[in-house]
Parts: sequence; C-alpha cells; structure tokens
Amino acid sequence: MNRSRTFKTQIEITLPEWIGDFSHRHPPCPDDESKMRLTNELARCNVEHETGGPFGAIVFDAETGVPVSFGVNSVARLNNSVLHAEVMAIMLAQASVGHYSLCAARQPRLELFSSCEPCAMCLGAVLWSGIERIVCAASHADATALGFDEGPVTPQSWAYLAERGVEVVRGVDARGARQVMRLYRKSRGLIYDPRRA
Amino acid sequence: MNRSRTFKTQIEITLPEWIGDFSHRHPPCPDDESKMRLTNELARCNVEHETGGPFGAIVFDAETGVPVSFGVNSVARLNNSVLHAEVMAIMLAQASVGHYSLCAARQPRLELFSSCEPCAMCLGAVLWSGIERIVCAASHADATALGFDEGPVTPQSWAYLAERGVEVVRGVDARGARQVMRLYRKSRGLIYDPRRA
Repeated sequence: MNRSRTFKTQIEITLPEWIGDFSHRHPPCPDDESKMRLTNELARCNVEHETGGPFGAIVFDAETGVPVSFGVNSVARLNNSVLHAEVMAIMLAQASVGHYSLCAARQPRLELFSSCEPCAMCLGAVLWSGIERIVCAASHADATALGFDEGPVTPQSWAYLAERGVEVVRGVDARGARQVMRLYRKSRGLIYDPRRA
Repeated sequence: MNRSRTFKTQIEITLPEWIGDFSHRHPPCPDDESKMRLTNELARCNVEHETGGPFGAIVFDAETGVPVSFGVNSVARLNNSVLHAEVMAIMLAQASVGHYSLCAARQPRLELFSSCEPCAMCLGAVLWSGIERIVCAASHADATALGFDEGPVTPQSWAYLAERGVEVVRGVDARGARQVMRLYRKSRGLIYDPRRA
C-alpha cells in the first residue's frame, strides 16, 4: 500500500526573467495616471513575452512613487492557479517589507495598482494584505468580455473593502488596460479555465 | 534618485518541518469522516508546533484516500497573508500534478478538505483551482467567534461554486475543528489582523 506517496513540501514563485529589464527602465511615478500607465505596460510585457495573461499589478510606495513589488499573471507559466497579478504583487511586497501586513507600523504608505479590477480571490487577498488603497484600470466587464471568469464579486464585496478602510479607485487608464487585453486576444493568448484545461 | 530600489523577484513557500513526520504516520482515509479527522489533526499540529493559525487543508485522491498535498495556515510564519491552509494545499497539489487545473485530464479525481469553511479569498482560489469537491468542518461563525475575519462570503458565493460544478459539503467533524480552535485560543495563538499588526 502506497502510504508514502511523494508530495511537495515547497514551491518557488518567480517573476519572469524580463522583469529585471523592466524594473530598471522606469522613473518614479508621481501620480495615479503614471502609476497605472506603468502597470498597464507591465501587463503588456507579460503578453508580448508570452509569459501569462494580460494582467499586471504593482505595489507602490505612495509617497515616492517608486515600485515596491511587481506582479504579473503567472497561472499557466508556473502551473499555479493562485498566481494572479495582484496575488504575486502582494506576496512579493510582503517578502520585501518582511511582514504579512502592508500597513504595519514603520512602513511607507503602500498602494496596489492593478490593470484590472480584482477577481473574488484577489479581492479577498487585498483585504488580508493590509493594503489601504487599490487603484484599478479595466473593469470586470472587460475581463469577462475577454473570456475570464471573475467569480462572485458583488456590491457587498466592494462595500466590505470600504468598511475595512480600503480605498478603491476604479477606471484609471482603463483604455490602456483594454488595449493590452485586445493585444492578448489578437495574439490568441490562452483564456485558461480550469474546467476546460 | 533611487530608481533601482531592490525588490524581490522570487519567494519560496515551504511547509513546516514537522510535515515530514506527519505525512508518514497515517494510512489512507476511506471516507469523509476519516479524511476530515486527518485534516483536523493537521490543524492541531500547526497549533501545537506554533507554526500558524488553527487551520489545515488536505487535497486527497478521492479514489485511494491518499493525500496529494497538505496545507496549513502559514501567514505569520512566512510573513505572507495569502498563505491560508487552502491556498497552500491548492498550490502544492498543482505543483505535484504539474498543472494549474486539478481537474485536468488524466488526473485522479481530487477533493479538498478544509478544517474551516473558506474565507472570501480561499473560496475564489477553490473556484480557479479546478477542484470539484470541497468538504469543510468548522463554519465561518466558528472562525469569526475566534476573532478571524472571513471576508465577503454570501449565499451567492456558495451558489457560484455550485453553478461551476463544485460540490460543497459542510459541517463534517466540525466538533473536531472547534476543539483545535479552542486549543489555539487557550494557547493564546496570534489572531492576526493586518490592520492591528
């Protein structure tokens, strides 16, 4: 009887290799619009390098406008359905600051920019991350039109964030994010769905 | 101007060291009750070893009753707010089978057991994982009574799972899971909250 089936005790999560170049060629971003342009550019790189879905997320130091972490959709690349852009950016930001809360004492004020409104999982991840501000570009409707499921996100979900003190800003450079989505469709990027895999 | 702030490009996610012992001392589990007893025991080990919150999750091969992956709450241990038990079990199962979908072709039928009903983030993670059956022990009310926030999970959220073909079974050995929660409270385990960190 096989009682000692081999199972994994660890995994490594990595950004695509091109992130090194990307991260060095950009100045700090002084305002929401420039932060989102950079976030959408990150999403575009993910499509152009064929390393994942058309989604990017960046945690910024709100004061300096310098990125603290980057995240790109890495579900298919790393065979891990949890690795949406927001989840990657949150985990890498926490690794960078060395704390599970992104609003713990003695940290700069941090904010999450995402090229698309968070799905149900990422909305929960935002809640638990301690991030106090999230800024989004494309809408759920945009993602759904592209063929991606967003899960059960309702007006109550957004209200829950607000009650917990998380500021949400939507629709910043949505046009830029939709352009990246169109590029993904045009390049026949994978619309992954666990039940059609 | 500090353009080249150091940021992380990778993180490693590991189970606690005691998982090696734990995984070898158990026979396959023939039914839901024995699977959940093992899951609750996993949660208890996490409390007793002081490696995280009182939550455990196991992905089982539904046919053989052999665990495919283990997950324990690792938020404080690894400084990563995403690492709830369910998320860890899902990511490690996907690493084990080498696919982002746990219902992809040529896999055994897999099911997720969790010592507590999933929070908003984990419910979304279940949706995207491709898992087709989730069995839970303690309820949201139990977790909330202990002081943990569960996020925006509504009847619509559960309905969404059902619509996507995910079977949900609740309340299996809830008593066992609540005992682990009481142990955690008694041992003054951390009720982490990003906004009180």
